[in-house]
Amino acid sequence: MKVLEERIRQEGLILSDTVLKVDSFLNHQVDTRLALEIGREFGRIFADEAVTKVLTIEASGIQFAMATGIALNVPFIYAKKKKAVTLSEEVYSAPVHSFTRGETYQVSVSRKYLSPSDRVLIVDDFLATGAALVGLVNIVRESGAKLAGVGCVIEKSFQEGRRLLEEMNVRVHSLARIASMSPGEIRFIEESAIHRVKETV
Amino acid sequence: MKVLEERIRQEGLILSDTVLKVDSFLNHQVDTRLALEIGREFGRIFADEAVTKVLTIEASGIQFAMATGIALNVPFIYAKKKKAVTLSEEVYSAPVHSFTRGETYQVSVSRKYLSPSDRVLIVDDFLATGAALVGLVNIVRESGAKLAGVGCVIEKSFQEGRRLLEEMNVRVHSLARIASMSPGEIRFIEESAIHRVKETV
Repeated sequence: MKVLEERIRQEGLILSDTVLKVDSFLNHQVDTRLALEIGREFGRIFADEAVTKVLTIEASGIQFAMATGIALNVPFIYAKKKKAVTLSEEVYSAPVHSFTRGETYQVSVSRKYLSPSDRVLIVDDFLATGAALVGLVNIVRESGAKLAGVGCVIEKSFQEGRRLLEEMNVRVHSLARIASMSPGEIRFIEESAIHRVKETV
Repeated sequence: MKVLEERIRQEGLILSDTVLKVDSFLNHQVDTRLALEIGREFGRIFADEAVTKVLTIEASGIQFAMATGIALNVPFIYAKKKKAVTLSEEVYSAPVHSFTRGETYQVSVSRKYLSPSDRVLIVDDFLATGAALVGLVNIVRESGAKLAGVGCVIEKSFQEGRRLLEEMNVRVHSLARIASMSPGEIRFIEESAIHRVKETV
């Protein structure tokens, strides 16, 4: 998504080889129009999946789940993060290890809102280690719902998240895929490059 | 807002005289269309305020700040909650005591995104004790921005939040105002009743 890559080049702050701050337009201050465009793009990419619900995780996935829900005209759910590991009969839950915070938390979704008749599209702001997204995939599978795929706004392709999800046979689509970065420099994986790889598989 | 009050009557779970669960359509699973309507209503109510930014607090305010940002065609900001009380030069912050969790956390907004030229509308899902909203009002005032007002989706009018905000000379508008509730029963403050009260002031 060219407009997104350009915005990342203009406003993204690369703090290290792995940390990219995009809080001027994506996940603290949010450019409402860009978020809507992102939602429309996910809606277009997953248009053939007859999605019934969008699923994300609080907090920074909410604006993109909302935008995707608008585009597909379906409700969305945001999984809750809890430190407590008190499991409840009422929720689907999965443990997620946060590498940035160095702690494991529990993500949970009420059983009332996912059922085998649902077709779920998972959306999040970042795909890096994939830890949170793997947790959400496990929750969808536990519910018996069909997983339409995972849509991420920004993918750090040099981290293992995409590989982990693909090993779970999940369809993954990221709107901006970062091949590498370091302070002052960012390289995206080009769409044509992705296509070439796919054709040789 | 009649459609909202009806939905609360139909789907709200009243767990006690003070706890109302609306997580089937507002703050866990979200009815995207209703959220958009809520945003349009806030946009209409504060149309004369020339709002430049919408401000809320993570996580459950995000969908309504997004919807209001869409309606007013402006960006929105969500304040971050942190347990750590490490103050930083880079943020405006305020302590907020959570009565439900029995702990005090810090809410913060990057100084980069609020300035004296802004006109800020604060939006949140619930107005109850008002603790989080008072914190956001203080952050806006510290930034030098003009505060357009506070818009809340559901107000528990029997708690002290509205009074606290009005004592700070803040314009408050809630879309559903609960006069009282107990398991099996909920009473809303009627619009006409509100008008009568206002006329006698």
